[in-house]
Amino acid sequence: MPERSIGVFDSGVGGLTVLRALRQQVPDESLVYLGDTARVPYGTKSSPTVIRYAHEAARFLLAQRVKLLVVACNTASAVAVDELVQRYRVPVIGVIQPGAKRALEVTRNGRIGVVGTEGTIRSGAYDRVLRQSRTDIVVHSAACPLFVPIAEEGWSSHEVARLAAREYLAPLLDKGIDTLVLGCTHYPLLKKTLQEVVGAEVQLVDSAQETAKSVKLRLEQDRLLQSAATAQPPCYYVTDIPDRFLRVGGAFLGEELRDVKTVVLD
Amino acid sequence: MPERSIGVFDSGVGGLTVLRALRQQVPDESLVYLGDTARVPYGTKSSPTVIRYAHEAARFLLAQRVKLLVVACNTASAVAVDELVQRYRVPVIGVIQPGAKRALEVTRNGRIGVVGTEGTIRSGAYDRVLRQSRTDIVVHSAACPLFVPIAEEGWSSHEVARLAAREYLAPLLDKGIDTLVLGCTHYPLLKKTLQEVVGAEVQLVDSAQETAKSVKLRLEQDRLLQSAATAQPPCYYVTDIPDRFLRVGGAFLGEELRDVKTVVLD
Repeated sequence: MPERSIGVFDSGVGGLTVLRALRQQVPDESLVYLGDTARVPYGTKSSPTVIRYAHEAARFLLAQRVKLLVVACNTASAVAVDELVQRYRVPVIGVIQPGAKRALEVTRNGRIGVVGTEGTIRSGAYDRVLRQSRTDIVVHSAACPLFVPIAEEGWSSHEVARLAAREYLAPLLDKGIDTLVLGCTHYPLLKKTLQEVVGAEVQLVDSAQETAKSVKLRLEQDRLLQSAATAQPPCYYVTDIPDRFLRVGGAFLGEELRDVKTVVLD
Repeated sequence: MPERSIGVFDSGVGGLTVLRALRQQVPDESLVYLGDTARVPYGTKSSPTVIRYAHEAARFLLAQRVKLLVVACNTASAVAVDELVQRYRVPVIGVIQPGAKRALEVTRNGRIGVVGTEGTIRSGAYDRVLRQSRTDIVVHSAACPLFVPIAEEGWSSHEVARLAAREYLAPLLDKGIDTLVLGCTHYPLLKKTLQEVVGAEVQLVDSAQETAKSVKLRLEQDRLLQSAATAQPPCYYVTDIPDRFLRVGGAFLGEELRDVKTVVLD
């Protein structure tokens, strides 16, 4: 029987930063990626709509015989992970919990900043998770709708990125945050620029990296780790034409994308 | 029998700039607007997907007894207007033809710039229409993915808008264009900034305004103009929660939005 793989899904290319981190953290695992590019972005859509999409993505990946499901999309993690955990029998890991956990570890003054899409910020998911663990935590969040197109445009180090970051982050810096959670899988591409804007005294939390660490831990706990180095190259599926995914995704993955297949979800 | 209204659809809020222009050009007409906010943006989606969405939108509006259909979305106009014209018995007017026609009227040197979403630019629709009419026309186009979120963020006069515009338009200005078609219904909000960046010698063509003029002409030709000033306030429909549409849309419409209903398309 072939070893089963890890299923990763996102609304588009952003989740490739999580896939990339997984390849570093669990290099022996086979990975299946699904980007719901026909319906990207999720960040501006309502919770019921995003939950429906998440179920469709989960069903598709489970049909590919995955042993663990990674919701590599903050918006879907914010609104759909609990439902997926209840509905399906494989472990489901979102990107919110790991990033929040790390933020709690690194903050010294208890003032944590969170940046993400409109949907993620509106959902208040980070606030909930952070303040559930420690009621003395103060969360300051900002929706940054320009960061996704900036990252996809390859402008992460451009002056436009710096200016937009200054505009979005000034109110958070005014509040004295010492930790900033990058609550969107696109944002790791902007890490360098964001670090420059917030200064060295503010620690950035990369939820893609933290999520990959959580996946590794969970695989170990559940004794699901691959027993030998038999990893296949990742399989990529998208719900709309792959050309844009191919072009933009390479920067997110850190290498050329190949063999992207188009599928219809229902 | 009640007078029939004009149906306007777009993937989101952008088409409200066309609705606004229609209210100026044909103030006696009743208007029905549909924003497919559950599936916005169309600009990154494939042609077959956009054509399917356009048919769904057209069927919904025809069920509201409209006498003329305005495709107030450049991406949908680029790929779906011909299909809609063939399929339905009411006149269908897109935003590409009117903008292109105006550009041909105003250009002196025959070098026309076109800016739009990735989907619109990739479709080559403006090039085709412009060069069909005059083979000596040279078209230089640029996809400007940041303009939509900039407009929706209310940053149209922000330094970020100016910098992004400079970056996108520099190659077109280098080619000596004397006319720039705003090939996306969001872009009229950026008009002032774009005019500053291109300079007074380049004429901007606002496709929202030109489309409204075309609608008026067609209603006159087909003797479909409203016979008396009995216009009802516009009806607004969206396919996802209206809160974002309400918040962002006001700036596009130039006045507060009211009574937005949510519908499901199929």
